[in-house]
Amino acid sequence: MSTTAYVEIICIGNELLIGKTLNTNAHWLAKRITSLGLSVRRITVVGDDVNEIASAIRESIQRGPALIITTGGLGPTFDDKTLEGVAKAIGRDLEENKEALEMIKRKYEQYVAEGRIKKFEMTEYRIKMARLPKGAKPLPNPVGTAPGVLVEYGGVSLVMLPGVPQEMMSIFDESVAPLLHRIAGNKVFYEVSLDIRGIPESELAPLIDRVMNENPYVYIKSHPKISERTHHIELHFSTTSDNPDVAKQRIERAVMQISELISERGGKIQPAQT
Amino acid sequence: MSTTAYVEIICIGNELLIGKTLNTNAHWLAKRITSLGLSVRRITVVGDDVNEIASAIRESIQRGPALIITTGGLGPTFDDKTLEGVAKAIGRDLEENKEALEMIKRKYEQYVAEGRIKKFEMTEYRIKMARLPKGAKPLPNPVGTAPGVLVEYGGVSLVMLPGVPQEMMSIFDESVAPLLHRIAGNKVFYEVSLDIRGIPESELAPLIDRVMNENPYVYIKSHPKISERTHHIELHFSTTSDNPDVAKQRIERAVMQISELISERGGKIQPAQT
Repeated sequence: MSTTAYVEIICIGNELLIGKTLNTNAHWLAKRITSLGLSVRRITVVGDDVNEIASAIRESIQRGPALIITTGGLGPTFDDKTLEGVAKAIGRDLEENKEALEMIKRKYEQYVAEGRIKKFEMTEYRIKMARLPKGAKPLPNPVGTAPGVLVEYGGVSLVMLPGVPQEMMSIFDESVAPLLHRIAGNKVFYEVSLDIRGIPESELAPLIDRVMNENPYVYIKSHPKISERTHHIELHFSTTSDNPDVAKQRIERAVMQISELISERGGKIQPAQT
Repeated sequence: MSTTAYVEIICIGNELLIGKTLNTNAHWLAKRITSLGLSVRRITVVGDDVNEIASAIRESIQRGPALIITTGGLGPTFDDKTLEGVAKAIGRDLEENKEALEMIKRKYEQYVAEGRIKKFEMTEYRIKMARLPKGAKPLPNPVGTAPGVLVEYGGVSLVMLPGVPQEMMSIFDESVAPLLHRIAGNKVFYEVSLDIRGIPESELAPLIDRVMNENPYVYIKSHPKISERTHHIELHFSTTSDNPDVAKQRIERAVMQISELISERGGKIQPAQT
């Protein structure tokens, strides 16, 4: 693994640990962060428990990512404990954040105006969404109520996003992607997949070794597919570079080399339909 | 969180960190483990890196689960590094396991007999799948080549499964589920979901608090859905018990109580279609 800036993702929610919800949030974030030229080094999932959240955050900070992104646990119910966990992990108090409170108030006023709710009072459950760790900055939520949260702590940026996918994605696009772009610079991630048939993975293994040795910036990974009668493997090539043309050339060279080796051994190659 | 026996899942593979592959393995395992009456306390995803794998395993062992299940990284290619990572984490050498070697040999002989490969030699890439940490036991793979692996270490059972979903599932069902059943005893997990409309989550929050207070064994979690004009929330009730009837009664009582409170406030309730 490189020593450049990387990201960790921490997903919070019992629904992920009981297998009720498929973690599409981590998948979406990992894809977006990678395409922005940064790498995700670890994804952690913990339940709605302050101590579990605080441990996961603390352990992550110690590993030294540039950015930690959490999902889930920002809402008004008792089990929305992310901000309490973050506050505990970084040793800061929670305090009512005026900007966040204003954002939430405007949302409920809008719901009243739209007839979605009859009236609006600032209850403790609503105020809870505006109780942020000291020094935190709320991030506007274009599609929901609870704001995202940004906290800087000892050289690490902690970004807390809601668990509802549409809310998570819209805050990411509006407030987090520009931040990542500043960290990553002009890096691009480039990938290509091939569909290989008729050669078992154990025969492909030495060919991958050989081509990776000759193409040090290209990562090649084989993904075996189950199929009844034939060996079927997806071969995935990826690289990251400051220059899109260089990235493309690197991949093309590796693809050409391995294609020759596979053809010589009777394997069949097609672009993968992913 | 309870202090009873629990499980941790560690998923290994760069494809999960670049957002190429959605982690359906963790989802499937979490659901199956929960339905067997045990809880999953943490899911960790790391890349194909020996040190990352070893750290994740070591940290998990220190937290004290009864069982750690890993997925991915058991195949013949250079980036299949799970067993090396486990060996490093628990301070044991890798050694050629005769039983595993025999399993792998029989698989390739079967592939030859079926005409899937022409001939079969025991190359270093194939032997690699049989190099297990000292004292490990291979678990038969009903649908693929690489065996699963079981290692006992300081009171923790470490189970390593392949990343190909069909292989992972079949080894789990055949060799891991019976092990979990012995740990869990007769515990059952019982869950029900309601579909709530017309009441915002922040108004539902105090009702959840009240019903959970009166039903200490029932966990209630609200999952807001994005919908244009109406508030739409899935309310999920769950409990674990040695007695299926007790579990069912607990949930029914909590569902009845909250349904009354929601109806009084003009909310609409339906069984959720999940």
